[in-house]
Amino acid sequence: MGSSDTVISIDAMGGDLGPAAVVSGMAKSAEKNPNLRYIVHGDEAQLKPLIAKRKITDICDIRHASDVVTMHEKPSHVMRHGKGTSMWSAIEAVRAGDATVCVSCGNTGALMAVSMIRLRKVSGVNRPAIACLWPSRNPSGFNVMLDVGADIRADQDDLLQYALMGLSYARNGFGIARPRIGLLNVGTEEHKGRAELKVAHEMIEAAADSNDFDYVGFVEGGDIPSDRVDVIVTDGFTGNVALKTAEGTANLISEGLREAFKFSPLSRIAALLAYPSLRRLRKRIDPRRVNGGVFLGLNGTVVKSHGSADATGVSAAIKLAVQLAQSGFGEKLAARVASASEAGQVADTAGEPQTAGGTNST
Amino acid sequence: MGSSDTVISIDAMGGDLGPAAVVSGMAKSAEKNPNLRYIVHGDEAQLKPLIAKRKITDICDIRHASDVVTMHEKPSHVMRHGKGTSMWSAIEAVRAGDATVCVSCGNTGALMAVSMIRLRKVSGVNRPAIACLWPSRNPSGFNVMLDVGADIRADQDDLLQYALMGLSYARNGFGIARPRIGLLNVGTEEHKGRAELKVAHEMIEAAADSNDFDYVGFVEGGDIPSDRVDVIVTDGFTGNVALKTAEGTANLISEGLREAFKFSPLSRIAALLAYPSLRRLRKRIDPRRVNGGVFLGLNGTVVKSHGSADATGVSAAIKLAVQLAQSGFGEKLAARVASASEAGQVADTAGEPQTAGGTNST
Repeated sequence: MGSSDTVISIDAMGGDLGPAAVVSGMAKSAEKNPNLRYIVHGDEAQLKPLIAKRKITDICDIRHASDVVTMHEKPSHVMRHGKGTSMWSAIEAVRAGDATVCVSCGNTGALMAVSMIRLRKVSGVNRPAIACLWPSRNPSGFNVMLDVGADIRADQDDLLQYALMGLSYARNGFGIARPRIGLLNVGTEEHKGRAELKVAHEMIEAAADSNDFDYVGFVEGGDIPSDRVDVIVTDGFTGNVALKTAEGTANLISEGLREAFKFSPLSRIAALLAYPSLRRLRKRIDPRRVNGGVFLGLNGTVVKSHGSADATGVSAAIKLAVQLAQSGFGEKLAARVASASEAGQVADTAGEPQTAGGTNST
Repeated sequence: MGSSDTVISIDAMGGDLGPAAVVSGMAKSAEKNPNLRYIVHGDEAQLKPLIAKRKITDICDIRHASDVVTMHEKPSHVMRHGKGTSMWSAIEAVRAGDATVCVSCGNTGALMAVSMIRLRKVSGVNRPAIACLWPSRNPSGFNVMLDVGADIRADQDDLLQYALMGLSYARNGFGIARPRIGLLNVGTEEHKGRAELKVAHEMIEAAADSNDFDYVGFVEGGDIPSDRVDVIVTDGFTGNVALKTAEGTANLISEGLREAFKFSPLSRIAALLAYPSLRRLRKRIDPRRVNGGVFLGLNGTVVKSHGSADATGVSAAIKLAVQLAQSGFGEKLAARVASASEAGQVADTAGEPQTAGGTNST
C-alpha cells in the first residue's frame, strides 16, 4: 500500500443486512477514492467471494474472525468473551496502528465497550461520547449533537469536554472553521436548568475565545435542527431520548403522509405528481446520507454505522471515516483536550489564558 | 346558574392573540355545551364588547383584573407582584371554589408558580407535574406524557406519583379504563438507565395491580407516539426536551414539505391535488386539536392552553377542562395519591396490598 493511502478497518459482519451490504458499500466508496484501502474483518469464506464479485480484492486485506456480535448481546458478555469476533478484530487493527479509523454496523453498546477496553480513553477525557448528525437548516444540512448515548451521566467537566470534542469533530470532520456551540437545556434563560448545567454554561463560555469557537448559550429541543448552532452539547441520557424521539416523530409523520396519499384516487394521482418533490425532501432528511455516529475521546476513531444501513448508508459512514482519517482528527482531538486541561490548570493558578500557537485546526 | 352547570374559570388576557381569540374559543365551546358557564378574568372594558359580540353575555361572569402577565415575565416576579393580574384572579376563582377548573393561555412558568402558591400541592404529592398530549398511533390519536416541565428533577417516588397521576388523568380525562403506563429510558432492557429509574421501574410495576393499570416497562423516545402505551412517565427535564425536540422535528419536516411542493410547476399542481390529503394529516397531528397541558397534583385543576392558541385551540382546551370538571377528576386524583401512599405505608410494615374498594374510577 502506498504512503498516501487511507486505511479503514471494517467490521463486515455486524449489520442487519449482513456482509453483502457492507462489501457493496465498501465498493461504492472505493470507486470515488483511489487511495482507499480496507482491512476487512469477518468470516473469510463469506467475504472472499463478495469482495471478488465487487472487484475490490486488490484493496482488501481480509482478517478472518469466526464469531459475530449479535444485536442483542450484552456489552459485558462481549467484553469477556468477544475476542474471536469481527468487531473485536476490527477495533484491534486500529489499536495496533494498522488502520486509522474503524467502521462497524454492529451493536452500539458492545462496540463502545470493546472500544473502551481496547483503545482506552484519551488522556484528560473522563467520559467518551457518541456524536451524531442531525438534519438541520444549516447550509451543510446537518448539526452535530453529543453525547447521544455513550454514558447516561455527565457533570460540568464532562460537558465542557463534550464541547471541545464536538468542536474538534465539526472542524475536522466537516470543515467548519469556527463552530457555534450550544448547551441543551429546558429554556434559554440563564437561571434555568440543573445546577451542573449552569456551571457548564460558564465553563464553556470561558473556553470559547481560547479555543476559537462561538458559544451561543443554552439551546432548547426545538433548536437542535436550527441554523443558529452547529454543535449541541448534552448528557447521553437526554441526547439519546431526544434522538429517538425525533426519529419516532419523523416516522409518525412519514407514515401519516403515506396513508394520506393512499386515501383516494385523487390523492394517489397527487402522490404520483408529488413524487419528485417528496424524494427531494426525503433525500434532505435521509438518515442514510448522514449515517455515522462517531465515538469521541478514545485513542482511535470509531464510526458506528446504523445497524440497518444498506450500501448507501455504509458508504456514507466510510466517507466520514476517510474524512476523519485524512484530517488527522484523532491526534488533533487529543491535543485539543490536553491543551484545554493544561489551560484550565494554569488559569486556576495564574489566571492567564493559555492557547498553544498553531492548534487552530485541532 | 343551575346545579348541573359546569363552571370554568378563564384567564382571558394571557395569550399571544389577545382576548378576542379566547372569547371566540369560549363561544365555540358554549355552542356545543348548554350547561357551560364561565368566570372570565381580565380588562372589563375590553372583554364586555367581545363577549356581547359573541352573544355569550348570559353565561359569563366578568371579574375585572387590570394587569396582564406577559410571556417573558419571571415566575418569581409574578409570585410577588402578580395579585392584580387576570392569571392570579383566574386561579383564585378555583381556590375559592367558584369554578372547578382554570384555563389560561399565559406564560407557563408564571402559571405554575401562581398555581403552586395559591392552590397548594395535594397531600401526598411531592412535585406537581405538567401532562401533555402527544399525537400517537393509538385509536384515540394521542398519548399522555408527564412531566413535561413542571420540575427539572424527579426521584423514584416522584416518578411513581407521576404514574398514578397520569393514570387518573388518562382515566378521567379520556375514559381509558385500564391505561398502559411506560417509563421513559434509553433502552428497554432492565439493566439500562439511571439508578432512580431502576427503582422506579420496580415501584411502578408493584403498584400496577392494586391501581388497575398495566405497566409496560421501560419505553424509549421512539415509543412515545406508539400504540403500545397510553401514559409515558419521565422527569420534567427529559420530558421538556423530548416535547420541544418533537415539535422542532415536525416543524422542520413541514417546512421541507412546503418547500418541496413549491419547487416546480408540476409540484405546485401536485400540492393542489394533495391538499385534502395533507389537510387530513395535518388535522390528525394538529397540536390545536390536542391543546392543553394539565397541571397535576394541585388542589384544583389548571389547563394550560398554548400561548399561540386560536379559537380552535382555546375551545379544545376548554373541552378538556369540562371533561375533567365533570368527571370529578381533582378529587379522584387526590384520593388515588392518598390511597397509594397509605398502601405504601402499610405494605412497608405488614406487606399487605391495600386497595380501597370502589376507587376503580379514580
